[in-house]
Amino acid sequence: MDLVIRNGQVVTAAGRWQGAIGIAGGRIAALGTVGPGAREIDAGGRIVMPGGVDPHCHVEQMSGMGLMNADTFETATRSAAMGGTTSVISFAAQARGERLRDTVAAYAARAARGAAIDHAFHVTVTDPSVEGLEADLADLAAAGHRSVKLFTTYDIRLDDAALIRVLAAAKAAGMLTCVHAENHGMLDWTKARLLAAGLDRPEHHALSHPRLAEVEAVERVCRFAEFLDAPVMIFHVSTARALAAVRDARARGVPVRAETCPHYLLSTAEVLRRDGIEGAKWMCSPPQRDTADVAALWQGLARGDLDLVSSDHAPYRFDETGKLHAGATPPFPAIANGMPGLETRLPLLFDAMVSRGHGGAEAFVRATATAPARIYGLPGKGDIAPGMDADLVIWDPGRRVTYGADDLHDAVGYNPWAGTTVTGWPEVVILRGAVVKDGDDWRGTPGAGRFLPRAGHGVSPAGRMAPELAFMEGDR
Amino acid sequence: MDLVIRNGQVVTAAGRWQGAIGIAGGRIAALGTVGPGAREIDAGGRIVMPGGVDPHCHVEQMSGMGLMNADTFETATRSAAMGGTTSVISFAAQARGERLRDTVAAYAARAARGAAIDHAFHVTVTDPSVEGLEADLADLAAAGHRSVKLFTTYDIRLDDAALIRVLAAAKAAGMLTCVHAENHGMLDWTKARLLAAGLDRPEHHALSHPRLAEVEAVERVCRFAEFLDAPVMIFHVSTARALAAVRDARARGVPVRAETCPHYLLSTAEVLRRDGIEGAKWMCSPPQRDTADVAALWQGLARGDLDLVSSDHAPYRFDETGKLHAGATPPFPAIANGMPGLETRLPLLFDAMVSRGHGGAEAFVRATATAPARIYGLPGKGDIAPGMDADLVIWDPGRRVTYGADDLHDAVGYNPWAGTTVTGWPEVVILRGAVVKDGDDWRGTPGAGRFLPRAGHGVSPAGRMAPELAFMEGDR
Amino acid sequence: MDLVIRNGQVVTAAGRWQGAIGIAGGRIAALGTVGPGAREIDAGGRIVMPGGVDPHCHVEQMSGMGLMNADTFETATRSAAMGGTTSVISFAAQARGERLRDTVAAYAARAARGAAIDHAFHVTVTDPSVEGLEADLADLAAAGHRSVKLFTTYDIRLDDAALIRVLAAAKAAGMLTCVHAENHGMLDWTKARLLAAGLDRPEHHALSHPRLAEVEAVERVCRFAEFLDAPVMIFHVSTARALAAVRDARARGVPVRAETCPHYLLSTAEVLRRDGIEGAKWMCSPPQRDTADVAALWQGLARGDLDLVSSDHAPYRFDETGKLHAGATPPFPAIANGMPGLETRLPLLFDAMVSRGHGGAEAFVRATATAPARIYGLPGKGDIAPGMDADLVIWDPGRRVTYGADDLHDAVGYNPWAGTTVTGWPEVVILRGAVVKDGDDWRGTPGAGRFLPRAGHGVSPAGRMAPELAFMEGDR
Amino acid sequence: MDLVIRNGQVVTAAGRWQGAIGIAGGRIAALGTVGPGAREIDAGGRIVMPGGVDPHCHVEQMSGMGLMNADTFETATRSAAMGGTTSVISFAAQARGERLRDTVAAYAARAARGAAIDHAFHVTVTDPSVEGLEADLADLAAAGHRSVKLFTTYDIRLDDAALIRVLAAAKAAGMLTCVHAENHGMLDWTKARLLAAGLDRPEHHALSHPRLAEVEAVERVCRFAEFLDAPVMIFHVSTARALAAVRDARARGVPVRAETCPHYLLSTAEVLRRDGIEGAKWMCSPPQRDTADVAALWQGLARGDLDLVSSDHAPYRFDETGKLHAGATPPFPAIANGMPGLETRLPLLFDAMVSRGHGGAEAFVRATATAPARIYGLPGKGDIAPGMDADLVIWDPGRRVTYGADDLHDAVGYNPWAGTTVTGWPEVVILRGAVVKDGDDWRGTPGAGRFLPRAGHGVSPAGRMAPELAFMEGDR
Repeated sequence: MDLVIRNGQVVTAAGRWQGAIGIAGGRIAALGTVGPGAREIDAGGRIVMPGGVDPHCHVEQMSGMGLMNADTFETATRSAAMGGTTSVISFAAQARGERLRDTVAAYAARAARGAAIDHAFHVTVTDPSVEGLEADLADLAAAGHRSVKLFTTYDIRLDDAALIRVLAAAKAAGMLTCVHAENHGMLDWTKARLLAAGLDRPEHHALSHPRLAEVEAVERVCRFAEFLDAPVMIFHVSTARALAAVRDARARGVPVRAETCPHYLLSTAEVLRRDGIEGAKWMCSPPQRDTADVAALWQGLARGDLDLVSSDHAPYRFDETGKLHAGATPPFPAIANGMPGLETRLPLLFDAMVSRGHGGAEAFVRATATAPARIYGLPGKGDIAPGMDADLVIWDPGRRVTYGADDLHDAVGYNPWAGTTVTGWPEVVILRGAVVKDGDDWRGTPGAGRFLPRAGHGVSPAGRMAPELAFMEGDR
Repeated sequence: MDLVIRNGQVVTAAGRWQGAIGIAGGRIAALGTVGPGAREIDAGGRIVMPGGVDPHCHVEQMSGMGLMNADTFETATRSAAMGGTTSVISFAAQARGERLRDTVAAYAARAARGAAIDHAFHVTVTDPSVEGLEADLADLAAAGHRSVKLFTTYDIRLDDAALIRVLAAAKAAGMLTCVHAENHGMLDWTKARLLAAGLDRPEHHALSHPRLAEVEAVERVCRFAEFLDAPVMIFHVSTARALAAVRDARARGVPVRAETCPHYLLSTAEVLRRDGIEGAKWMCSPPQRDTADVAALWQGLARGDLDLVSSDHAPYRFDETGKLHAGATPPFPAIANGMPGLETRLPLLFDAMVSRGHGGAEAFVRATATAPARIYGLPGKGDIAPGMDADLVIWDPGRRVTYGADDLHDAVGYNPWAGTTVTGWPEVVILRGAVVKDGDDWRGTPGAGRFLPRAGHGVSPAGRMAPELAFMEGDR
Repeated sequence: MDLVIRNGQVVTAAGRWQGAIGIAGGRIAALGTVGPGAREIDAGGRIVMPGGVDPHCHVEQMSGMGLMNADTFETATRSAAMGGTTSVISFAAQARGERLRDTVAAYAARAARGAAIDHAFHVTVTDPSVEGLEADLADLAAAGHRSVKLFTTYDIRLDDAALIRVLAAAKAAGMLTCVHAENHGMLDWTKARLLAAGLDRPEHHALSHPRLAEVEAVERVCRFAEFLDAPVMIFHVSTARALAAVRDARARGVPVRAETCPHYLLSTAEVLRRDGIEGAKWMCSPPQRDTADVAALWQGLARGDLDLVSSDHAPYRFDETGKLHAGATPPFPAIANGMPGLETRLPLLFDAMVSRGHGGAEAFVRATATAPARIYGLPGKGDIAPGMDADLVIWDPGRRVTYGADDLHDAVGYNPWAGTTVTGWPEVVILRGAVVKDGDDWRGTPGAGRFLPRAGHGVSPAGRMAPELAFMEGDR
Repeated sequence: MDLVIRNGQVVTAAGRWQGAIGIAGGRIAALGTVGPGAREIDAGGRIVMPGGVDPHCHVEQMSGMGLMNADTFETATRSAAMGGTTSVISFAAQARGERLRDTVAAYAARAARGAAIDHAFHVTVTDPSVEGLEADLADLAAAGHRSVKLFTTYDIRLDDAALIRVLAAAKAAGMLTCVHAENHGMLDWTKARLLAAGLDRPEHHALSHPRLAEVEAVERVCRFAEFLDAPVMIFHVSTARALAAVRDARARGVPVRAETCPHYLLSTAEVLRRDGIEGAKWMCSPPQRDTADVAALWQGLARGDLDLVSSDHAPYRFDETGKLHAGATPPFPAIANGMPGLETRLPLLFDAMVSRGHGGAEAFVRATATAPARIYGLPGKGDIAPGMDADLVIWDPGRRVTYGADDLHDAVGYNPWAGTTVTGWPEVVILRGAVVKDGDDWRGTPGAGRFLPRAGHGVSPAGRMAPELAFMEGDR
């Protein structure tokens, strides 16, 4: 064995056991009773879990406002790994007029240079009018890209016909379609009324994204998915009622899955009301909600109505290059939306789910590693079993850490969770058998991360489109 | 008394009684035991009901295809009256770039000249970018126009932000918003796939309007109505599931009402599969559905989930000036949608509801006269009580009539229901005390119909908008 | 005319008009313009409405505890009429071992002697083991008795098989089955735990009837009604969720109707927490709930999910012959359940619905007179139209009255609503053309009330039993 | 290692991998790369799965009719193991008047003598009036018995108050309550009508258990579980609508789980219509349903609304000692209900789920081994991981077997699935490291099976009882 980790309490989504993990050639080779290794790590009774899989983060990407993300692949993946995450899926975001194959090629080149951990892409379609949509998606799928991202809001939104077209093309290509679902018209109309009423502070951002805007868009996307029997992932569910809409759709047999994020589970819109411009650090879309929504989301995670928890890492500095590019106290629509989250996702959730018992350790692994790997079809990730990639994290379940103002390893320059104390900390992080985090030290290598070609995804259609589409049966 | 009708079996939405009706000054003056009249009619034991109110018909209106309706106010109202209807609400349809006040003035002038029965308008908003939307709606409401019409499909559709804006403006003006609710993107995408597959006959029209397109749009409009607590009427519900969406919205307290039409209650998409181009005579939007939908609509009418039955009279001749303007066997998208229905609505429903017992006579009056009058706020219409307008129909419940190929009194030139036999016939029709139909003879006068200014409508908001809109409380 | 009422603002469930009402032979003979009467009443612009119909009251009946109601037919009907009610349906409650025909005969004899207003009976079945259940129900239906009453709780409850048997027999006889629906097991178990915990005061009565006990029993009864397609009325709905269960059942096509009572619409369980034993005055089953339930019930009444409002008058004196028969401060299970309500039902609801606008005057008439008359099939009642019984109330909409401690005309001796002020008062009450209340004076005559034989009821089956019962088709 | 299995394709609920399994001391000691074993088995590329866990079977138990099961622990566990099952939970069924501790002691003694595989008991409560219910349940839980069984039908049914009492006691003791949920009244009433109509053949058994009887009882039990926040398992769900009731309850946060059985997934009521008395071989309760129910159950299993698939093995010989004890062609109520299933459960489901793809191999393991082990809290069972019991099955995925008339290893004497061909066969079955089935040979030992004491179960309460029960908080 190249490496053996002994004396760990191994926890997977399926259960837990005591013993050793043997690693050879970057893969898990032996479990339980394991012979000697060239190198050995004594876990000392600490918890060993699969490396985290974060399937929703923005890296080296231009925002709708024309702001470049603060993070490069190098800084983003370093930050992820320092938080226990060993695989990410970020976005290859189509610029207007750009062919999708070119989009993906450009992002792939950047990631190949910079990424210190393994990675894949969601192909963000913003301009379906560009030549070759269906052909490029098919080619990209063949090349191992198996997910598409769409918006129902922002300037990059698709209208309904385009959304349906992309859903159908993605399904035909064997891809899963991820959707940011909020009703653009409701947001737009409400924002205009707020501004007209002089309500333009960060706290009003929450009002500008009414709950019903999310509910409506989720219902609509689910109806489209039902129409085509097309696999869909609803991104960042934030409200109790949108969650109910997902559950209702599943009950009808619609192939829909859903995620939420730590900031919807662990904070409310209160954070936007902090003094001065401070609330802007927490601004993201959809916004944080209230305690009833928080309770419903936890319940949804427990029942499986929510499949996983991603970070939605969207990195902007809190200065004139980022959040405050429009001034020191800009109106909320001029403030870039997004929070850093790659590095805090796992410690925050370990604290909540394992240390404080909201679901337990197995559920934590499932929500943050196993389910993302399965749903997005990432080979070799998300579990500890012979043949799987040796992506492992040794957690110290007793270590208490209080976040500081600027203690993350990304390029964002602030930590919204400053002052929050978590119990449980990722001490050692291993990527394909190589230690990339050791104690508080970064040991990873930019460019050492690999692209993860995927053969498919894990959301099966029900086998039946709307009856009116029977004439298309040959297309399926 | 100017006129006394004796020996009738009087039926209203509330019940039935035997006796006389005395009329003075065009109004009902006495019921039961009534003194002598200047003129007397012996109903001879036949049924006397309130004159029908048809709140959904297209008259002297340009279609989206640029086709003018076959009917003028003169021909349309003559046809309506010959079928037992004494009040209509047709559309004042905004042309692109036209101010709404000008739209309504033009239609009002045409109606004043031609209408032989009483009438009002729904203000169809197709271009909210024109100056003065909110102001014109407020002025129009003050002048007695209390309903707005919107589309979610066709070239005249409003996008979501515009739809919300108009809903809010209509609510502020005290107007009810009526919506043709189908998802444009789903229709468009499906139509393109059908045509690409060479499926372009009238029967494929049904496939081009998938059930879920109606369901989605109804759900969405109900969510907007919920957001604003704005009164909404869903036009021409055709599917079981859209009906369920209305019911669910009502259960949440959303101020939404719904109607259907005789062709959804009494025929299925089978009619579109008739030989050659014959099916084109039945083409309308949404299309006829199947027997399960028909059963659900009847049940919905019985339970009150559907409030009323309108005709959606949309008159096009079956020739090169109308349905076949694009040729003798055009592809379905080139065929004008719409069926004549003003004259057949009441006999078809009397036959079904009274003669064949689907609900009974009181329910028939409620669905076709009382409910439309109440929901749309038509003063003096829809009931037989002292002070109400003397709009009355004497029905011969035993007369059996088989419709012929071209026996209607509109300008359409064909009767889609040719060959259908109905039991029960409107023998005498009285408008404000004046006989306008006598046996089979037309006695009405173009221009004698009056505009019906309305003080409001009958759909009360629940009193609570979405919580995010609390800042607008002052606006309500 | 025998009597003419002039200058009234006449309000029915269908609308309102100004004019005269002519009465001849105890019936309404003329409306609107009416010739001279032998006697004339000038309503002076006040409101004239149909006499109230109270379809749920306990009169001269033995309670489950062996307590006789405080009211005889004479006192109960006097109280009803003084409150504006001119028809009641009370119970003919089977004693154990008694044939139903004997039960009804005994009650009918007592009512014939004492009743000052018109009346009918629900046949309360408590012992289906007695010979002749099906035969007696058929005979009673033929004699004009068209409703049955059942309990799912108390010692007189029916088990599920008996309940189904009676539902089937009632349906076969053309009778409507009314149900007191609470889960006995839940009540019993909870009561035992409360008493074991020493929680035995009136306020604990509310805990002893958990909401879910009502919800469960309503769901179950609706499933039985669905199974047999048997018409059912759910009595005294008190919770939001039981109301939702009724609505769900209706959406499935189950022939179920529902009522509530003033004390569920206008008070909460707070009343049970009054000082000392005072709360016992308000004890009834189910108990008052909370403000969220109250809001839902009002919304349900507005939407038609609740069809009517009855009193559930259950008269016990607040002394050793009634509520306090087990002592001055008995544990709650020893306190007779029930409140007087015949006389206060209409003024309380007029105040809420007409004066304070919760629904309006027409809705008030519908809920308290028209709907009860229609649903229970009472001939000639609940409306103002030619031929109907001349049961009329002249309301002074401006008169404000504050209830006193003992100001009702029943035999109960206390008014739970003491201190409550209502706006609107029934000044003149007319039964079949005879004034029975004039100002504050009682002018009625014990024994002058007539039994109201019924030909059927107003709740139509959907036409389809459970598929497993197809073999019984011949029985229907 | 005592035993090493090499060259297997190992499949667990979590995924699959290639490699070796090392066993020492009856437990799994090493996975992946494993050193030499005292004994080695070459799986030859075949599939290795965890041994099956069947949590619902009747063994050595007296039926309600007074018939003893055909199977002893020896024959039942032999049959189970020959079908790939290595753990069973059968019933310790209380006789009337018997203390539960005595019941369990008697069954435990019989099982200890005869059982060839590991086992646990559900404590069937039929007589809660016996002294010591709560105390015995607490003691039994402490001794490792963590599930209770209740009936809502048959002579051994509990009434609602008793059911609630036992649910509360089971929850307090940390036990999961399993329920046979059908409405007894509906069954009883329907059966009587069928017999009265002369419909008494096996096919009429299906009519005698209407779908709504299951739906109602499931709804009711879920309401009780909601009331107490008590963990519940619904046994043998057979209908689409009962499944929907479970799903609705889960959406409300009720801690309820559900199972179904192979005969509901793989056959319909058609089997009861076989010639002569043949249908009696398939008679069980609830009965098989129709194809729409079958489709819904498969969908429910895919979505996780159904958690697992058990056999409900209820063994009666098809002769005068069993099914036909009342004669050769008895009326259906005199025919014992139940089918053998311990041995066929896994091959039938492997064929459907793995070979024919209804869910796949991982889902098969989850439904038949992992989920039962987790939900019922069986230590060391249902997974392949270091430290787990070495309960393993080597499946030959290509072997096709057609069931014969009497080829099972139980004592029943017939195989209802005779003539059915399955693809995939359990070739080698290993219990705690010992081969108990080798090819077609039985190698097990009566009495070698161990009792499985449990520390708890896997169904967590939501943390909130009905608000009316707040006074009991101390009891939780």
